[in-house]
Amino acid sequence: MTTEAGSGHPSSALSAGHVVAVLMYQQMRYDPLNPWHEGNDRLVLSEGHAVPVVYAAYADLGGVVGWSDGESTALTVNDLARLRDIDSVLDGHPNPAEGFPFFDAATGSLGQGLSAGAGLALSARLRGIHKRIYVLIGDGESREGQIWEAADFIVDQNLTNVCAIFNCNGQGQADYVSAQQSPEVVQHKLAAFGWDARIIDGHDADQIAAALADVGKTGRPLAIVARTEKGWGVGALKAHTNHGKPLPAAGLKEAIAGLDGMYAELGISADSDAKLAPPAPSDAVAPRPSGPIRLPPFADGVAAAELAEALEKGKLATRRAYGAALLALGKADERIVALDGDVSNSTFAQFFAKAFPNRFFECKIAEQNMVSTAVGLAAGGFIPFLSSFAKFLSRAYDQTEMASITRANIKLVGSHAGVSLGADGPSQMGLPDVAFFRSFTQVDDGTGQPACVVFQPADAVAAYRCTELMANHVGMCYMRTHRPDMPLLYAHDATFEIGGARQVREGSAVTLVGSGFTVFVALAAAERLAREGIECSVFDAYSLPVMAEPILASAQAAAGLVLTIEDSYCGGWHAALAEAAAQTGQVRVDGMTCGRIPKSGRTAEDVLAFVGLSVGDIAARVKQLLD
Amino acid sequence: MTTEAGSGHPSSALSAGHVVAVLMYQQMRYDPLNPWHEGNDRLVLSEGHAVPVVYAAYADLGGVVGWSDGESTALTVNDLARLRDIDSVLDGHPNPAEGFPFFDAATGSLGQGLSAGAGLALSARLRGIHKRIYVLIGDGESREGQIWEAADFIVDQNLTNVCAIFNCNGQGQADYVSAQQSPEVVQHKLAAFGWDARIIDGHDADQIAAALADVGKTGRPLAIVARTEKGWGVGALKAHTNHGKPLPAAGLKEAIAGLDGMYAELGISADSDAKLAPPAPSDAVAPRPSGPIRLPPFADGVAAAELAEALEKGKLATRRAYGAALLALGKADERIVALDGDVSNSTFAQFFAKAFPNRFFECKIAEQNMVSTAVGLAAGGFIPFLSSFAKFLSRAYDQTEMASITRANIKLVGSHAGVSLGADGPSQMGLPDVAFFRSFTQVDDGTGQPACVVFQPADAVAAYRCTELMANHVGMCYMRTHRPDMPLLYAHDATFEIGGARQVREGSAVTLVGSGFTVFVALAAAERLAREGIECSVFDAYSLPVMAEPILASAQAAAGLVLTIEDSYCGGWHAALAEAAAQTGQVRVDGMTCGRIPKSGRTAEDVLAFVGLSVGDIAARVKQLLD
Repeated sequence: MTTEAGSGHPSSALSAGHVVAVLMYQQMRYDPLNPWHEGNDRLVLSEGHAVPVVYAAYADLGGVVGWSDGESTALTVNDLARLRDIDSVLDGHPNPAEGFPFFDAATGSLGQGLSAGAGLALSARLRGIHKRIYVLIGDGESREGQIWEAADFIVDQNLTNVCAIFNCNGQGQADYVSAQQSPEVVQHKLAAFGWDARIIDGHDADQIAAALADVGKTGRPLAIVARTEKGWGVGALKAHTNHGKPLPAAGLKEAIAGLDGMYAELGISADSDAKLAPPAPSDAVAPRPSGPIRLPPFADGVAAAELAEALEKGKLATRRAYGAALLALGKADERIVALDGDVSNSTFAQFFAKAFPNRFFECKIAEQNMVSTAVGLAAGGFIPFLSSFAKFLSRAYDQTEMASITRANIKLVGSHAGVSLGADGPSQMGLPDVAFFRSFTQVDDGTGQPACVVFQPADAVAAYRCTELMANHVGMCYMRTHRPDMPLLYAHDATFEIGGARQVREGSAVTLVGSGFTVFVALAAAERLAREGIECSVFDAYSLPVMAEPILASAQAAAGLVLTIEDSYCGGWHAALAEAAAQTGQVRVDGMTCGRIPKSGRTAEDVLAFVGLSVGDIAARVKQLLD
Repeated sequence: MTTEAGSGHPSSALSAGHVVAVLMYQQMRYDPLNPWHEGNDRLVLSEGHAVPVVYAAYADLGGVVGWSDGESTALTVNDLARLRDIDSVLDGHPNPAEGFPFFDAATGSLGQGLSAGAGLALSARLRGIHKRIYVLIGDGESREGQIWEAADFIVDQNLTNVCAIFNCNGQGQADYVSAQQSPEVVQHKLAAFGWDARIIDGHDADQIAAALADVGKTGRPLAIVARTEKGWGVGALKAHTNHGKPLPAAGLKEAIAGLDGMYAELGISADSDAKLAPPAPSDAVAPRPSGPIRLPPFADGVAAAELAEALEKGKLATRRAYGAALLALGKADERIVALDGDVSNSTFAQFFAKAFPNRFFECKIAEQNMVSTAVGLAAGGFIPFLSSFAKFLSRAYDQTEMASITRANIKLVGSHAGVSLGADGPSQMGLPDVAFFRSFTQVDDGTGQPACVVFQPADAVAAYRCTELMANHVGMCYMRTHRPDMPLLYAHDATFEIGGARQVREGSAVTLVGSGFTVFVALAAAERLAREGIECSVFDAYSLPVMAEPILASAQAAAGLVLTIEDSYCGGWHAALAEAAAQTGQVRVDGMTCGRIPKSGRTAEDVLAFVGLSVGDIAARVKQLLD
């Protein structure tokens, strides 16, 4: 199939052939005809480029591809020739979202599979299903730090139903793997991380089966370090210059003849018609809740989080309101789970953590593992909310994009966003995050939904309701929350919607558009200008992809001038509204974003002034626009 | 100082007090009056939040702050009270770019310091300086996978002049650290990674000094695992709920009295005037080249990389031309170094690697360590070019932003960008990268320069010259290269500039703007439309921040219509030109970006059509605009 496709990784696939065969034909308990059966054991192919060998086995077993709620069909051996075709479900790397449901997570950007496996294992535990999760990892990719974050996490969580298999074929892409990734060193590392790790011959089916028989039996997570040969069985693919290279058509016949010639050597019959089939999954599966998740009234949700007193004083940070909403979501629906990276007392995931310790996963300071673990939990049917500082979530942007490729139903919440954080300085501030996440909002995920929906609530009511919107939107969401306690802008029963914006002040001069913390800055500027007789209207644009039309129409009805104010680097609402306005040219749009790399300042105001976003800066720009 | 600032991390600082004191007063060989002396030993404070203790020691030693080429002054103890002030060089976390030159890298987003230390150590080796690099790492942050990427890399490179000190105070922010980060487990992990690791009492100066005396003497990198107490010496700060909390003013006197009362216990005299001073750096330092770096003519550079034959056939991928340029840069100037993550045969850093093995660093599959190592190399005066697939560089976006805060002079090159990669699928394609990096291009780095400059060359000549521009621009740069071999668009002597765009076709209808691979797509669409009598002009916008004026002026002189075409997610040139156009409303701007999450397709054309960017799609949109 790789020869037919003209690309692919047959040498990697051949190195994993025996391990995959023992897993898929013998050890895994699953139903190839129903890949959606929740009791199925799962395989995560972390070294995604080796996927042709899985496709081959799955086709041989007649495994079903497609969608549980749409068209599905049994994969045939003939289908394999369409590997990497634009119309084929057989993507170049594992891609469940394009119709290969045997997998739970898109892989191919390396080092992420063990974390996804951890999430699947947590799902199984929460659901009381005694399934096993096998994760196949390349030796080269075990250089990725995320593998070791996952190794820590799996021990912390005592996930003995996870089995990590390291495919040590000794070759990377550009060269041999480092001695730091030799089977022996990998084994020592795993042992130091608290795993039961053993080295086997990865081309000896008996050794593979014997090792796999111990999964879950030693009281520790089991790792199998399999010595293998890249290009096993095909001489032309064994040299270390063959990564990712298919055989030319001319060499194919000889290679297949060579493989066929090994039957005798392996002591098996070439013409046996005996079909192996995997054992069936054993667990009955309980139903789970479905349908919309509704929050109690705002004041009730806030009171349940013991924030009523703060609210009475009139100020409540969006991050606190997020915590209250998350707690209420957890009470409302057992599908809600939460993850945090040692900052739950800053993000306020701590309310949920305290109330639902079984559904809260402390990921410690390891954000990459947190995001990919959430992907596994989402694949297990849960709705994971994961929080850290917005800055620290940027640690996991590769994992986040892989989650988008998976169409994982995860909710990322980045606190301490923008410059209002003040004193801690730029190493703690989310700044390019809006541009990054907006880039997904105009991308169709294949179902007509945006690949990501973004929220940036200005006040506690908005934060509470945007959290509810996230829980009910099926797909990836990102929410920015802010550190400062700020007054409420909205009535307790105010409503919000994806892509929405609310007008919070009327005026006929410039239309100011803020988002999150900058709504307050825009309002302060509008008040200052009003004292000079300049009446600006102010919009709170709290979501992306923003519905630009109402804002632009309102501006057009006034002076035809929009000024956006954002506490992040460029690429957010200014870009979105400018793109919309530039379609017609009828409204002029200017924007102010964080114009300088920030530094520490003792107050939000100090830092806003430092980066060119003070109330005075805004007022001056408004006057400039009106000139 | 933290009480005065009202924030900061005194409890973390106190846990590191003895280690920092032994380092800064006794063990490090450096000149506090000349922090720019290249022979100085260096301290990287990976757990950046503990920085107040370093500020205190540095002020006590009269260390100089400011800029080597500008104002500088000795820090005084009185200055400490201005911690975190907007006008102070004492940022909340280490920040050399705001005037604290004792540090080389901004830290505070955790887990990055050991990699920066590796880069400093490589710099010292290349320069023949026998300096030592000390890296202080928190136990909680040692959960970050990047620490273990760095641990592998330092062993691979045999950097025995690096000393990692793990400050194991047992407390994180939200809770105690996991048992996975206990001193014993950290020691076992380090040993498995090939380090000489020993556990000491981190509050015993003699034990600290004895351990540090072994740096460089055991033939392996040395790690010291220091058992410490968070809030050491101050009862009110010892509880695990005190992370990041300063003492209230009311509690300060008692805390200081308590610390003073420990003199006797520690066997030292409270009233001694004896000043300790660090030993001076010993190495004389050789001069290094300076000034602009010039490349040979394009054809010569290409021939030196043995690509002349490919060029004669008329096609050369931008990634190959990058490789040729990098090789030529390496010949022209010894400051040029290169790093790659096991894909140098795809990015074509391999030409450089082969010619200059001492200046090429194979980072293996660990992109985060690669970026932070490059920051260390840049701090050492080198000009690092680091390459991987654009997709895989997104693994290190947090590190990249920290590099921007450092104002590190690093050059990131992401190959296989956009959808033209085709068959490998979305897990290998750079898609949100343009939005991410553009967000930095409108941010002043404090010197009037953009925080990042972006390049996306369409042809080999442009790629060759953009690489030269990157080498000569002091500051962070990002270049996207593409997989396909494409024809040359430009004469061999064509010139390029930061922010530039070149008109590659004239026409009076819609002005098409492509970048990189999409210039060819735009040209194909223009040709198809020309056959129908619609003459579009085409611009190649190869850099950000783009100078929009010439493009918009040209469009205004024609039909007043711009259509951008990009093979990435939104947030790039469309946003930039729309923002510019929306200032005046005189030119209408529409844009086409990758409109759907891609999948594998056997040809670039298949995938372009899948995501809505086929030649036909573009032609149809042009006609729509003209209607």
